[in-house]
Amino acid sequence: MSSTPETALRALDAHLQAMPPVAALRLRIAGYDGARLSLRAPLDANVNDKGCAFGGSLASLMTLAGWGLATLQLQAHGLDAAVYVADSQVRYLAPLYEDLDAGAWLGEGDWDAIRAKLRETGRAGMVLQSQVTGADGTVAASGRARYVAILRAPEAAG
Amino acid sequence: MSSTPETALRALDAHLQAMPPVAALRLRIAGYDGARLSLRAPLDANVNDKGCAFGGSLASLMTLAGWGLATLQLQAHGLDAAVYVADSQVRYLAPLYEDLDAGAWLGEGDWDAIRAKLRETGRAGMVLQSQVTGADGTVAASGRARYVAILRAPEAAG
Repeated sequence: MSSTPETALRALDAHLQAMPPVAALRLRIAGYDGARLSLRAPLDANVNDKGCAFGGSLASLMTLAGWGLATLQLQAHGLDAAVYVADSQVRYLAPLYEDLDAGAWLGEGDWDAIRAKLRETGRAGMVLQSQVTGADGTVAASGRARYVAILRAPEAAG
Repeated sequence: MSSTPETALRALDAHLQAMPPVAALRLRIAGYDGARLSLRAPLDANVNDKGCAFGGSLASLMTLAGWGLATLQLQAHGLDAAVYVADSQVRYLAPLYEDLDAGAWLGEGDWDAIRAKLRETGRAGMVLQSQVTGADGTVAASGRARYVAILRAPEAAG
């Protein structure tokens, strides 16, 4: 069944916080405009030995932003699917000495085609782009990851 | 100055545990044979919504195993360098329903050449391979990452 964006974001937040390694990042959903999902996390929970953001936290936030975006895009059209990350590439571009702001968006194709493929075959791949920026707009890391969605149950609503 | 392997491993462990996002993984150093560094982390601290290991934890453990290996290989020859991850690729191969065992090893060239380059130019790049396996040997994820070491101080001992 489709849900309102607010309900969907609250459900996504609860889902994320229920995972111990994700709760440790202390992230929150910072924005969703229907195309790009943003997550924010405080530096102090994600700091490395050099006083800047830990590379693993940058990568995790980008992976989660992509995973969350895919989940929202499918749920919004009544598709109940398990979403898995298949592979990812991350480039670490600059040290980040402030809170982490991670965004993800579709890197190839369009969501309508992905949802149609999922409805027809029960499975669909997608490529998501992501980046982490600081408050001043500096890009700390950029990522590209391939996800696979597998339909869990018959479609409840179109 | 060079240190014994045991002292170096204790120092590495303390260094890792001092980083909040790394402490959250609850990892420990599981082995080091001079070529491969292994880190182990419990599933319950790193579990996702599907009951298996969170992709971000797999990627973080591999990144840390590589970072730790590079640090040990440089310190053992008296080189005090800051080690940064520059880029990484991860392939997620199978869900892991048990504790995480991450290993890293040199993927290209040899450590002597890397140390020589670092001594000569103050900077050296390296490519490390990594994987995470379960207790039964199943490979859950494999990675390949490029790191850069930058000399922090004049060499204290050769």
